[in-house]
Amino acid sequence: MQKSLSVYDSDGSTFAPLVVIELVSETKEEAIAWLLNRVRDKQQDGGAELLVEQLTPGAQGTEKDNPNVYVVGASWQRLLYGAEDVGLFKEFNDGSMRGFTYANKHNFKEFQGDGDGFLSMAECQYIIKHELDNLRAKDEAHVPGYPKMKLYPGKSVIRRMQSKGILVQVFPLHEKEELKRLSFSWFKKIKLSFQPLDDIRHYFGEGMALYFGFLEYFTLALIPMALIGIPYYLFDWEDYDKFTVFAGFNLVWCTVILELWKRLSASLAYGWGTLSRKKAFEEPRPGFHGVLGVNPVTGRAEPLYSNAKRQLRIYLVSVPFVLLCLYLSLYVMMIYFDMEGWALMIHDEEPTFWTGLLLFIPSIIYAVVIEIMNLIYRYAAEFLTGWENHRLESTFQNHLVLKVLVFNFFNCFASLFYIAFVMQDMVLLRQSLATLLITSQILNQIMEAFLPYWLQRRRNKKAHKRMIKTMEDKELPLSEQVKLEADMSTYLGTFDDYLELFLLFGYVSLFSCVYPLAAVLVVLNNVTEVYSDAFKMCKVFKRPFSEPAANIGVWQLAFEAMSVIAVVTNCALIGMSPKVKSYFPESETQLILWVVGFEHFLLASKFILTFVIPDVPKHIQIKLSRLEFESLEALKKRLRLKMAAHAVRSKVEENRSHLAGQLPSSKIP
Amino acid sequence: MQKSLSVYDSDGSTFAPLVVIELVSETKEEAIAWLLNRVRDKQQDGGAELLVEQLTPGAQGTEKDNPNVYVVGASWQRLLYGAEDVGLFKEFNDGSMRGFTYANKHNFKEFQGDGDGFLSMAECQYIIKHELDNLRAKDEAHVPGYPKMKLYPGKSVIRRMQSKGILVQVFPLHEKEELKRLSFSWFKKIKLSFQPLDDIRHYFGEGMALYFGFLEYFTLALIPMALIGIPYYLFDWEDYDKFTVFAGFNLVWCTVILELWKRLSASLAYGWGTLSRKKAFEEPRPGFHGVLGVNPVTGRAEPLYSNAKRQLRIYLVSVPFVLLCLYLSLYVMMIYFDMEGWALMIHDEEPTFWTGLLLFIPSIIYAVVIEIMNLIYRYAAEFLTGWENHRLESTFQNHLVLKVLVFNFFNCFASLFYIAFVMQDMVLLRQSLATLLITSQILNQIMEAFLPYWLQRRRNKKAHKRMIKTMEDKELPLSEQVKLEADMSTYLGTFDDYLELFLLFGYVSLFSCVYPLAAVLVVLNNVTEVYSDAFKMCKVFKRPFSEPAANIGVWQLAFEAMSVIAVVTNCALIGMSPKVKSYFPESETQLILWVVGFEHFLLASKFILTFVIPDVPKHIQIKLSRLEFESLEALKKRLRLKMAAHAVRSKVEENRSHLAGQLPSSKIP
Repeated sequence: MQKSLSVYDSDGSTFAPLVVIELVSETKEEAIAWLLNRVRDKQQDGGAELLVEQLTPGAQGTEKDNPNVYVVGASWQRLLYGAEDVGLFKEFNDGSMRGFTYANKHNFKEFQGDGDGFLSMAECQYIIKHELDNLRAKDEAHVPGYPKMKLYPGKSVIRRMQSKGILVQVFPLHEKEELKRLSFSWFKKIKLSFQPLDDIRHYFGEGMALYFGFLEYFTLALIPMALIGIPYYLFDWEDYDKFTVFAGFNLVWCTVILELWKRLSASLAYGWGTLSRKKAFEEPRPGFHGVLGVNPVTGRAEPLYSNAKRQLRIYLVSVPFVLLCLYLSLYVMMIYFDMEGWALMIHDEEPTFWTGLLLFIPSIIYAVVIEIMNLIYRYAAEFLTGWENHRLESTFQNHLVLKVLVFNFFNCFASLFYIAFVMQDMVLLRQSLATLLITSQILNQIMEAFLPYWLQRRRNKKAHKRMIKTMEDKELPLSEQVKLEADMSTYLGTFDDYLELFLLFGYVSLFSCVYPLAAVLVVLNNVTEVYSDAFKMCKVFKRPFSEPAANIGVWQLAFEAMSVIAVVTNCALIGMSPKVKSYFPESETQLILWVVGFEHFLLASKFILTFVIPDVPKHIQIKLSRLEFESLEALKKRLRLKMAAHAVRSKVEENRSHLAGQLPSSKIP
Repeated sequence: MQKSLSVYDSDGSTFAPLVVIELVSETKEEAIAWLLNRVRDKQQDGGAELLVEQLTPGAQGTEKDNPNVYVVGASWQRLLYGAEDVGLFKEFNDGSMRGFTYANKHNFKEFQGDGDGFLSMAECQYIIKHELDNLRAKDEAHVPGYPKMKLYPGKSVIRRMQSKGILVQVFPLHEKEELKRLSFSWFKKIKLSFQPLDDIRHYFGEGMALYFGFLEYFTLALIPMALIGIPYYLFDWEDYDKFTVFAGFNLVWCTVILELWKRLSASLAYGWGTLSRKKAFEEPRPGFHGVLGVNPVTGRAEPLYSNAKRQLRIYLVSVPFVLLCLYLSLYVMMIYFDMEGWALMIHDEEPTFWTGLLLFIPSIIYAVVIEIMNLIYRYAAEFLTGWENHRLESTFQNHLVLKVLVFNFFNCFASLFYIAFVMQDMVLLRQSLATLLITSQILNQIMEAFLPYWLQRRRNKKAHKRMIKTMEDKELPLSEQVKLEADMSTYLGTFDDYLELFLLFGYVSLFSCVYPLAAVLVVLNNVTEVYSDAFKMCKVFKRPFSEPAANIGVWQLAFEAMSVIAVVTNCALIGMSPKVKSYFPESETQLILWVVGFEHFLLASKFILTFVIPDVPKHIQIKLSRLEFESLEALKKRLRLKMAAHAVRSKVEENRSHLAGQLPSSKIP
């Protein structure tokens, strides 16, 4: 834990600041005082029992600075109890991973002395966020000073203030020293090496580390494909028969890598203690609203919103909206084909170098338009899913992912499917695929790393310059650091990063058999992606709260769905290849039946493989079973002791009544 | 619990006999004495703490009777502790299902007074079986008197004696009164009604009740199909176009009923307390052998058998054997087609009534041969799977089910597939289907209920007559009852019953669109099946130990796989119908592509439906979440108390050292 920065507690003792709370500058005094008291109150009085202090503005503090910035920390013991509360898993003395308990703390491997360094700063920040989120209203009817900001017993105070807009943001602080080390080992080294996943997890948490792990795994898994693809390009192998071999390779490849990833991710998650960690009970998401009622599960007061109403909104508004967007996307695709035809016409009339270049223009424009449409749709989908008013963040995310995936898939691949299976023009397919892939890669890299970086530079050019200068200087005062970080952009989660990988996976697995260089391009893109993503996490964005995760969640499903579609597509492409056709000279029906039979066989094998390959490697399975067995045995032992005690007790009572019968007048103690 | 029968304990008190242990008659005295002592020993001394007595032969006892028959019971308190030990779920005061604990016993709904009637006799017997199975060797090197019957610490005594053959059988006793009531409400009533599932569960346990529940559900689900099928038969609708409608109905039907069954079975299992019950740790199955080693999970001594060796046995012996059997089955099928052709030839030469009848002979012979092959293969598969030496009963069962399913599916349906898709002869298909279905139904009913009944009657005709006579008489002595039941056949589990349903499901879902009467026949069969199965459970077999089950296990998967195959088959049949063909007069290719597209759409919808329909109904999901939430909250509360106590303690210590500072010489207690 970072000890260099510290603020003084009200008792005069110091504490390490971990999390920053920013309220709007015109917040009423009584609301602030109430909030701070609630945060400081003892747990048995319903408080969070944390340490919180107002940030004293530094020397360069100006009038314009918001005075309502608070730093939150906690005593070491409070953090350890919090670790038990959030259900952290840590390595035990015997090498297995177990749920941390305060009483048992000395039996954990890394707990030495006072336990200094036992919890990473990211974990401490996660604990503080959890405790802040779980700070609940008692009998207050509203936030003091704001009669309209209704509260009811059990409502999360922080969430209410956030949804009503007096709480601007809550964010964890960066750790300068640690960040410098991490940046160096991650992306500042020249030599190519694996990413420091454990360090990433240590600093950013498991969710982020799994994303980078998956990115790296995906890149490595693509290398064999890229290597096979290169000779196709170098020797200009134009015949589709060699592509058939490539398509066959594709099929096996995409099934196997996804299965292996599940095992790898289980290994990583086990080592990080998130594999067997129980999911905490999920609270309603901040934006959820409804009539106050009683939750049937928790028995707590909570807004309720009828499921029927939500279904109506989904089926009567969202679904038609998505369909309309798909139609629009089709319409744009048709315009693209018109443009394509027009460019071809011009080129055919008088072919020059310039008209040859012109041939690529429609594809490039189309690629840009696709990216813009994806972007606009993304916002619309987010708005719409919010309006559907899902109770849980996880259901919200699932509905959002589903909406966005369907549209992006359609938007990016519809034209390719049309070219491949309706126009059956393999040359155009290849050209289209190449242009789409390259353009979208370039656009993505610009949009996701350099644009935010440039925007931020422009926004606070001066402050940034100062930061750059003083970043090297260890003695940057706390107030300055907080101010700088508060102005950084907020990282919105791994959604867009995964989406990008998903689309790249689509380009590679669906059509790369007609453009084997796709894998090479994707590998190159992923290598730069690692660097740009690492750069943006360390330099561009506020530190995000770490998110415990045991796997990549709904994305595993999305990638698997894509690989099923890839089987169908590749089989169809194989069936269309002239060489395969030549095996069935008389009857096209025979050909199709064979291809369909082959495809069914592949799909069946795929599902069987998914069943047969265990999702968790055996050595981890054994460790998990051992823990389970031990807890069962402990239960039984306790039961046996109880039985023995019971037996002794009834024996004693029997004797006593026996004695009492013999000596009716004597008192037996 | 049955109180009418009782034997005297060694203390002179009586206990209700629940389970019978039969040892071979020439067992050595010292082994018997040792076993009885171990069963009676206190739990803290490693015993089972049960009550056990030798059965005193009744008045009619002859010299030939085996004297080594023992009845086992337990004190009521022991049974209640046992209920906690096996993890029984019971209804709590608040209506939810909770794991029973002895300390909390008065908070369970049906626990009144001493708790009489709280546990059903089946549950008591299950508890006793569990405790007997868990009776483990301590430091004995072998069973006393049998130096070759090796034991090692932790080895289950009963299992070893069973596998070495001195223990003939362990079985639970029937409960005459209860059985009479159950028989009456189950199959002796004349009027048609639902089965008394709760009573069945009460008497035979959850596994059996789920089988009968599934049988009933399946029959009800078939009724709409049967109703639609009847007019096809009555009005002799021979055109295949109407069959297309039927095939479409088939597709929707088989997806929906399987999904709904999952929900229904979850409801049943929740009410019976098995849904959220944790699976006990699985012991090696009795037949498992290997070199003594240490189990990495339990740390106990246990035979180990290398996985590589097992894989070798599976892939080098079992798989080739299964393939050989499939080839044989194909060979028999070809002989059948030869016979069919020969019968047709004779009929064509001079068609008379008798040659018309002759047309059915090959199918009937083939059906009988199929049944015989299935039966022989069943034994071979069991032997082979045993030889594969699986460690767990569950893996053994999975491998056995897989082997048997593949062969039975192939054996029963290969000829139908051949007729449908290679010969494309719909008339022959219908005739074959009808003959196969009817013959196999008749054979099955004979084999599974009447044959064992008849065999048993013959075996002990006299004893049986006596039983029938005295069944009405309540005063049948215990020794007589035990003797009678010991001679009844042993019920080998629901495997064959499910297998039969699986094949019927196949006949209906795969091909019924060409023979709509199939559903009617299956409904009729199932109604008689309910009666014959109920009869055999109550009258023919020994009472089986109740087996807790939350669902129908691997059979759900098998039925779902069949429904996927049904989609493919029905789509193909639709594509072959003349009406559908007439929509694509020019191009057969177009037709096939449309049918394949339609099939892919159906398969995709099927998988999406499986995801979308929740497996557990919402009201049960809420109850489960509430329990989980409560246990989480209880944990947190405990943590908070600990924190408060810690705070007080450190405060006191602080004061103490403060005081100690002021008064250095005084001793503070």
